[in-house]
Amino acid sequence: MSEFEYGALASGLTRRFFLEKLGKVGGTAMLLAGMDALGFGIGSAMAAPPKLAGTPKKKKVIVLGAGNAGLSSAYELTKAGYEVTVIEARSFPGGRAQSARKGFSLTELGGEKQTCDFDDGLYINIGPWRIPYHHHSTLHYTKLFNVPLELFNNDNDASFLYMEKGTGPLAGKPIRKGEIAADALGYSSEILAKLSRQGALDGQLSAEDKEKFIEFMVEFGYLDKKDLSYKGTPGRGYLIEPGAGTNPGPGKPSVPYKLNDVLNSGMTKLLHGVADWDQQRTMFQPVQGMEQIPKAIARNLPPGMIRFNTEVQQIRQSPSGVTVNVVKDGQPETITADWCICTIPLSVLKGIDNGLSPAFKAAMEKCAYAPVGKIGLQMKRRFWEEDHSIYGGHVFCDNPDINNIAMPSTGWQSQKGVLLGYYNFGPSAAKVSAKSPADRAAMAVDYGQKIFPAYKESFESSFSVAWHRVKYNLGGWGMWSDEARATAYPVLTEPDGRIYLAGEHLSYIGGWQAGAFESAWQQVERLHARAMKG
Amino acid sequence: MSEFEYGALASGLTRRFFLEKLGKVGGTAMLLAGMDALGFGIGSAMAAPPKLAGTPKKKKVIVLGAGNAGLSSAYELTKAGYEVTVIEARSFPGGRAQSARKGFSLTELGGEKQTCDFDDGLYINIGPWRIPYHHHSTLHYTKLFNVPLELFNNDNDASFLYMEKGTGPLAGKPIRKGEIAADALGYSSEILAKLSRQGALDGQLSAEDKEKFIEFMVEFGYLDKKDLSYKGTPGRGYLIEPGAGTNPGPGKPSVPYKLNDVLNSGMTKLLHGVADWDQQRTMFQPVQGMEQIPKAIARNLPPGMIRFNTEVQQIRQSPSGVTVNVVKDGQPETITADWCICTIPLSVLKGIDNGLSPAFKAAMEKCAYAPVGKIGLQMKRRFWEEDHSIYGGHVFCDNPDINNIAMPSTGWQSQKGVLLGYYNFGPSAAKVSAKSPADRAAMAVDYGQKIFPAYKESFESSFSVAWHRVKYNLGGWGMWSDEARATAYPVLTEPDGRIYLAGEHLSYIGGWQAGAFESAWQQVERLHARAMKG
Ligand SMILES: Cc1cc2nc3c(=O)[nH]c(=O)nc-3n(C[C@H](O)[C@H](O)[C@H](O)COP(=O)(O)OP(=O)(O)OC[C@H]3O[C@@H](n4cnc5c(N)ncnc54)[C@H](O)[C@@H]3O)c2cc1C
Ligand SMILES: Cc1cc2nc3c(=O)[nH]c(=O)nc-3n(C[C@H](O)[C@H](O)[C@H](O)COP(=O)(O)OP(=O)(O)OC[C@H]3O[C@@H](n4cnc5c(N)ncnc54)[C@H](O)[C@@H]3O)c2cc1C
Repeated sequence: MSEFEYGALASGLTRRFFLEKLGKVGGTAMLLAGMDALGFGIGSAMAAPPKLAGTPKKKKVIVLGAGNAGLSSAYELTKAGYEVTVIEARSFPGGRAQSARKGFSLTELGGEKQTCDFDDGLYINIGPWRIPYHHHSTLHYTKLFNVPLELFNNDNDASFLYMEKGTGPLAGKPIRKGEIAADALGYSSEILAKLSRQGALDGQLSAEDKEKFIEFMVEFGYLDKKDLSYKGTPGRGYLIEPGAGTNPGPGKPSVPYKLNDVLNSGMTKLLHGVADWDQQRTMFQPVQGMEQIPKAIARNLPPGMIRFNTEVQQIRQSPSGVTVNVVKDGQPETITADWCICTIPLSVLKGIDNGLSPAFKAAMEKCAYAPVGKIGLQMKRRFWEEDHSIYGGHVFCDNPDINNIAMPSTGWQSQKGVLLGYYNFGPSAAKVSAKSPADRAAMAVDYGQKIFPAYKESFESSFSVAWHRVKYNLGGWGMWSDEARATAYPVLTEPDGRIYLAGEHLSYIGGWQAGAFESAWQQVERLHARAMKG
Repeated sequence: MSEFEYGALASGLTRRFFLEKLGKVGGTAMLLAGMDALGFGIGSAMAAPPKLAGTPKKKKVIVLGAGNAGLSSAYELTKAGYEVTVIEARSFPGGRAQSARKGFSLTELGGEKQTCDFDDGLYINIGPWRIPYHHHSTLHYTKLFNVPLELFNNDNDASFLYMEKGTGPLAGKPIRKGEIAADALGYSSEILAKLSRQGALDGQLSAEDKEKFIEFMVEFGYLDKKDLSYKGTPGRGYLIEPGAGTNPGPGKPSVPYKLNDVLNSGMTKLLHGVADWDQQRTMFQPVQGMEQIPKAIARNLPPGMIRFNTEVQQIRQSPSGVTVNVVKDGQPETITADWCICTIPLSVLKGIDNGLSPAFKAAMEKCAYAPVGKIGLQMKRRFWEEDHSIYGGHVFCDNPDINNIAMPSTGWQSQKGVLLGYYNFGPSAAKVSAKSPADRAAMAVDYGQKIFPAYKESFESSFSVAWHRVKYNLGGWGMWSDEARATAYPVLTEPDGRIYLAGEHLSYIGGWQAGAFESAWQQVERLHARAMKG
């Protein structure tokens, strides 16, 4: 499941429902490509960068963009003996992999300037924030450059679910996920164990397997061994927690909800037998922000190789080389090279005078970019830890404008912290992004207050981003429909003359840094094979 | 579930089976009290220490033992104006909360001296190693004294299960837990969804709830929406992981095992709908070892308050005070006080000339102490991360001598690491502890080699402990049968004259530090109420 689907699911939007809604808004560049846009890929296959052996004949490479794809291209090519120049419009490396902290500023297209005012040491990862254990390429660079990692708590049974649109007594109340999980699975196990005992599986399972199956259900659902009933389990929590002496002594166990109350709450849609591949434990984050990864790669490039604050305005090529016209501080300049690796997001690239072939231009149009919004809220007190014993993880809700409130997986037990106040997608992201930064914060804080009594009184300052309104991105990540994946996508993975495209959008790990790295590795390898020939 | 049950379950020992085995060995002091010994408590109720207001009339307190119970007693009493002396037989604070690192040495009763030879910075928590998020008392002290915490990865679907005693094709092979979970729950969901559709629940659920229930099963088990069948899920992993471009492109999903192969593997007994209360995420560990907690408390006591290397040999009391005879470096000394808090484990206390009442002496006999063993293995390479993408978590196996191999939740991606090579209990702990440290390590390494091809070649050095053979503990933790809980335990929670017992054994959070802290808090509060009167 991608970051995107994750959001859609969490807010109770099924794929179909979500796309129906999209359909109504349809037609603008920021919208999604259709039903199968959601089917895009989810993992990481290359564990190490390609080995680029030998001396290339033509060595000058211009890399456009200093996000993770551009940085890793530059690093691997430099190591192999290429002469690399990196052109980057922003003043810092990392592209989307950026963290907002004191002094960081952002002006969205047509928006007012925000300058982050968090306390020193506090930050929010406004772009990428987590790394699954199987993203080998991302973890290759953290290891290579000693970027310290800490665990990202992506699944916390002690955290709340909050469903306003459910029915019954649990709707509109913050309920701990572990309680829902225990009861939904306890009752299911009870039903299945009893049906098995009554013979419902006799055609399917041997007598021996049937007993093993019942035993599994008993263990799994914490059933009473004798009558196979579910009566609750300590794992769902206590009314009075066990303690010392005779009072509280053993404490008082909590009481299960009724099965139909659980079903009507709408919360069961957040329970899965195993986590989706992309959302799977173990997850990491770099200590002190995701930007530590691109910063580390950039530090390991020759000084001056990246030309910051330099915008690509025109790209041209001839049979013998590539010419790029850039502007820095209003000053135009022309740079030539033998090869070009272009990592500019397609949403941006197609608006540039790029000189690409008609086939490339047509293919680029088939990639839609996701509207995505995030907001960081600095809280003067970690009430989620202090008052609720929630350490990291997410609160999922069924208001798609909010969708996901996330507690930080760092700074445990310290005084202040920055919450993720919403993580919205698609039409909700578009809607919320029309508000001013202050109004976005007010909306987020009002909603959070319904879940945490200390939300509003603890709020100090905010920083928000709407990626579809960010100049050099125009969207969170690229999305391909099945049809576009089959037709347009393969076109763009080939070189156009001497120009190679790279970036998360040219992978099946879209919306993840691993997609950017592995796409870069692949294109660099191809470029090298050709440059060895001449 | 206690640390103990956890072990028993993990190694595939059901309660009954486990106790049958115990019954055969029975009779020795190190063995368990019986069937219901396993029913003991599991949580933490007091969130903050008692407020001890006012000026006590009699202020001199002698605290026996500087484990977590003794240290927290001393800290809270000192704060309230008492004059405290702490007597500790060991040369360091913390009791069981100790970490083995370079230079740390231990000589078990009748054993040879081990001195830890791990590289600088590496360690193993040979006693307590994890703190559930709801252990409010333990987390009270980490917060109060700024002990940095990091997440302890207690559940890792990417880690292996290894069951030699199962049958079928999965037996004797390391299998990732997530694969077993996906398939067992996928098939179960399929069965239940299909039975529901066929009407098996029509008496039980309304038509609407039935549809919600089927929808839940579809989400939970990743079923095909149309035919309700389970065909695998990306969450169980890939044969070829998705990547960049068109090759690997979308990658190649893995293929589910057969239901009866999964059942026959014996691995389903490790799957639970929610984690048991004590084993629940979120879990923490102090950065650089559990000993950081007692060290922090000790640092916050007046200098010299703890008298180390001082063994209690005799305890006496009169209506007006308590007299304790101690020995340091062969020199006897007598110390008097108004009150005594005794945190010496009952296993040790009953062997001391303690002067307690006959009722206390009888009650102490009813508490059995758990045989428990752990071994740390320093590996020169983190092959579990590098070769298998396993970052933290446990490998569970059905050899009770090993039971649990655990990967460290710290030092991610660094060069070396210390694995927990076994965590054994009961008869297995007794059996393994009879070996020399070198033979224990050889046994652990031989076994690990069956699971990880690089185990043996990576092994550098070991440090093991058998808690039942450790002089000032004589067991891992106290265990109460139901009968003893009802009769003997309440006796010991009352004062015996001017002596108050405290420690993990006097709680329903036995085998956890929270039990020690909360028992101390409770006794300190009672002592204070009495001291206020005179
Ligand atoms: C909200 C959000 C959450 C995410 N969560 C995760 C996550 O948890 N984990 C994860 O691994 N990934 C996550 N991602 C995805 C990840 O951020 C991207 O896949 C990855 O960073 C993309 O790298 P890139 O190099 O392909 O593109 P970019 O980082 O966008 O780099 C492109 C570069 O080109 C530059 N550029 C653009 N136009 C010009 C121009 N005209 N001239 C010069 N330079 C130009 C840009 O400034 C930028 O530096 C998330 C992304 C978003 C938006
Ligand atoms: C293998 C193992 C794993 C564990 N895992 C966890 C875990 O993951 N998380 C967790 O929270 N808890 C865990 N625990 C439990 C935890 O360690 C204990 O509950 C807690 O540390 C007990 O504290 P205490 O003060 O009651 O006893 P102790 O720490 O045993 O303190 C008693 C003190 O008395 C001293 N003493 C004994 N005899 C004398 C004498 N004659 N004279 C003077 N002093 C004496 C001892 O030296 C010791 O310092 C584990 C324990 C073990 C053994």
